[in-house]
Amino acid sequence: MGSEVVRLLTEGAEELAARIGAPVNLAGVYVRDASKPRPGIDPALLTEDASALVAGADVVVELMGGIEPARTLILEALTHGAAVVTANKALLAAHGPELFEAADAHHADLYFEAAVAGAIPIIRPVRESLAGDHIRRVLGIVNGTTNYILDEMTERGLDYGVALAQAQQLGFAEADPTADVEGFDAAAKAAILASLAFHQRVALDDVHREGITAITADDVAAARENHQVIKLLAIAETTAEGVAVRVHPALVPQDHPLASVHGAFNAVFVEAEAAGGLMFYGRGAGGTPTASAVLGDVVSVARHRVSGGRGPRESHHAERPILPIDAALTRYAIRVSVPDVPGVLAQVAEIFARHEVSIESVRQRAGSGSADLLLYTHRAPESRLQATVDGLREAECVHRVVSVLRIEGE
Amino acid sequence: MGSEVVRLLTEGAEELAARIGAPVNLAGVYVRDASKPRPGIDPALLTEDASALVAGADVVVELMGGIEPARTLILEALTHGAAVVTANKALLAAHGPELFEAADAHHADLYFEAAVAGAIPIIRPVRESLAGDHIRRVLGIVNGTTNYILDEMTERGLDYGVALAQAQQLGFAEADPTADVEGFDAAAKAAILASLAFHQRVALDDVHREGITAITADDVAAARENHQVIKLLAIAETTAEGVAVRVHPALVPQDHPLASVHGAFNAVFVEAEAAGGLMFYGRGAGGTPTASAVLGDVVSVARHRVSGGRGPRESHHAERPILPIDAALTRYAIRVSVPDVPGVLAQVAEIFARHEVSIESVRQRAGSGSADLLLYTHRAPESRLQATVDGLREAECVHRVVSVLRIEGE
Repeated sequence: MGSEVVRLLTEGAEELAARIGAPVNLAGVYVRDASKPRPGIDPALLTEDASALVAGADVVVELMGGIEPARTLILEALTHGAAVVTANKALLAAHGPELFEAADAHHADLYFEAAVAGAIPIIRPVRESLAGDHIRRVLGIVNGTTNYILDEMTERGLDYGVALAQAQQLGFAEADPTADVEGFDAAAKAAILASLAFHQRVALDDVHREGITAITADDVAAARENHQVIKLLAIAETTAEGVAVRVHPALVPQDHPLASVHGAFNAVFVEAEAAGGLMFYGRGAGGTPTASAVLGDVVSVARHRVSGGRGPRESHHAERPILPIDAALTRYAIRVSVPDVPGVLAQVAEIFARHEVSIESVRQRAGSGSADLLLYTHRAPESRLQATVDGLREAECVHRVVSVLRIEGE
Repeated sequence: MGSEVVRLLTEGAEELAARIGAPVNLAGVYVRDASKPRPGIDPALLTEDASALVAGADVVVELMGGIEPARTLILEALTHGAAVVTANKALLAAHGPELFEAADAHHADLYFEAAVAGAIPIIRPVRESLAGDHIRRVLGIVNGTTNYILDEMTERGLDYGVALAQAQQLGFAEADPTADVEGFDAAAKAAILASLAFHQRVALDDVHREGITAITADDVAAARENHQVIKLLAIAETTAEGVAVRVHPALVPQDHPLASVHGAFNAVFVEAEAAGGLMFYGRGAGGTPTASAVLGDVVSVARHRVSGGRGPRESHHAERPILPIDAALTRYAIRVSVPDVPGVLAQVAEIFARHEVSIESVRQRAGSGSADLLLYTHRAPESRLQATVDGLREAECVHRVVSVLRIEGE
């Protein structure tokens, strides 16, 4: 992830400067062995002296992981007033309060969007957008490995063992999958989410935890009969008595937004008193997606240093041409009613070819004396698609164009 | 929405003060007729002099709608350095650049989360979380009325006219539905979303717009045959040539996250270069949800005034008891294998009754000599549900407890 962050900082330098209101200069990159070349990183930036690097920086990005020396370096940075951005879930779960107190004492920013649910923006919505509301409950699919396994069991009727082996072969699960399938990873994220949502300290030990290893193909089939799917959920809720945090597999109604979170994706569903149900969906892991979350934090804390006490500016610095609809690249699904006689399809296909629109698939539904053709195109400029439709409308081999719809989201 | 904002500000005063670091004092509420009583608002706070109110405030919340006098009052507020929170979509679409320039010139915050997609936090994620990334495309379901109509057509096979009439009767559509069904409302939101996503000015006139009035039940049925659903999408994308913004009905694959956005809900799907696909889902309209977004903005801008150049503090001010799993209220789905003889169900039901767990439904699957019972409970404390399962395990009338799963998300 570190090299991805450096790449995005370097390649996007100009744009970042525009968004922040000042240039970002990369002061250095701490590595254990500075003699080892790192593709894409200027060797002059590499250093083995982390303390000196931290002492001279305005913004410190910690991506080393683990407890030490990350904890000491972050405390050093905050003490001299630097802003800190970290993706270190384990450190926050173990030493969060100490770090937040240090940030507070030295009026320094400590940001950690990348530590929970990877690229999904969840910290800002919970800490800021919902700051005037009361969160009652958080239901999260926060572990991609277990979601992948359960999704394969659901979609393909696989047994747990087979789905796990497949996940391991495809790189979605570790050789030792314990941290994922027994719910330890999800429990650490549940603790952080609960702390954020309920404004109080929730430790890893406070989280009741059950894994997915006992789930059978039969459980999944029974769930389906009842219009439900099985998901491993991280649940944090407030009741009249207090706060409860747990991780366990659960039956979720098929029409609940969480039920349609497939593969290794993550999602966090938040139930707030005034806002109602909200869901945040995206990639929970991976170097590039997580680097996006780190960069967002870097821009935020850098903006704070530049602007002093203001939120982000509504910068309209880009001036790209705004294109007419004719230039849009899209796909069409076209239904035409045609006579049910030989050779019609060839004549219809010729109209598409004339306008350089290529057909992806054709389906035919026969009627009495006429047939409906449903034609899906490949992507093409709107102007050519529109010309094709005009051509069909005028063609003698076509009774009428029944409907035209664009296809999106593929 | 105004009265909801006042209610949340008043009822939540203590908690808001803890989150901001200073108390929020409601200076006054501008109304056209101050002699008319407003339930829940102290009459002494009502004023008909908006300019005087604005001149004395640190934070101005504009919920009057329309262009004037909202525009003039917001400019007055920004000019004397007050922070402004607005939900005024029409004003932003028409005069956004003027307002943002004024905010910039006077170093004042201008926040507008409630103006786009109601309660869904979309502005902060796009402006801040993704500030270090490149957004390629935004696909939004941003109009609840049209999504409700299309969803009813999809789920129940209704014709457009019937679905519209039903939406009107249930209050999801206006008597004159033009602004919704012809895509005007979605186009205004598309312009704001595109401006945010691409950091440049996109005007309402730049948006190509098609409504849903031509969609037939037959189109919906044909889409379903191809594993697609029809949604009215607001689309903003960058291409090599420039920026394109449009609103039209589109075929979306059934397994796309947007396909599972039902009823009057809204969602915004963002495709970013590094973060990948992200989706933000929730209520796009309604007084209380929208008030939540306004309050979140109020807390943000108030924090900026208090903290001076820092992001939100990680305040762990709450100290509620953290409950053991036994105290959790949940529902169980219990599968037991029993002998296929008369009287077994009564014996099983008695075990539930003994532990004061009430059964919501029972389904039976017969085997050879034995049967599977699938029992769904009502909500009950985990401890009693667990005792029920223990009772079933020990009972002579039960071969074995096949599986136990909790039910969540209802």
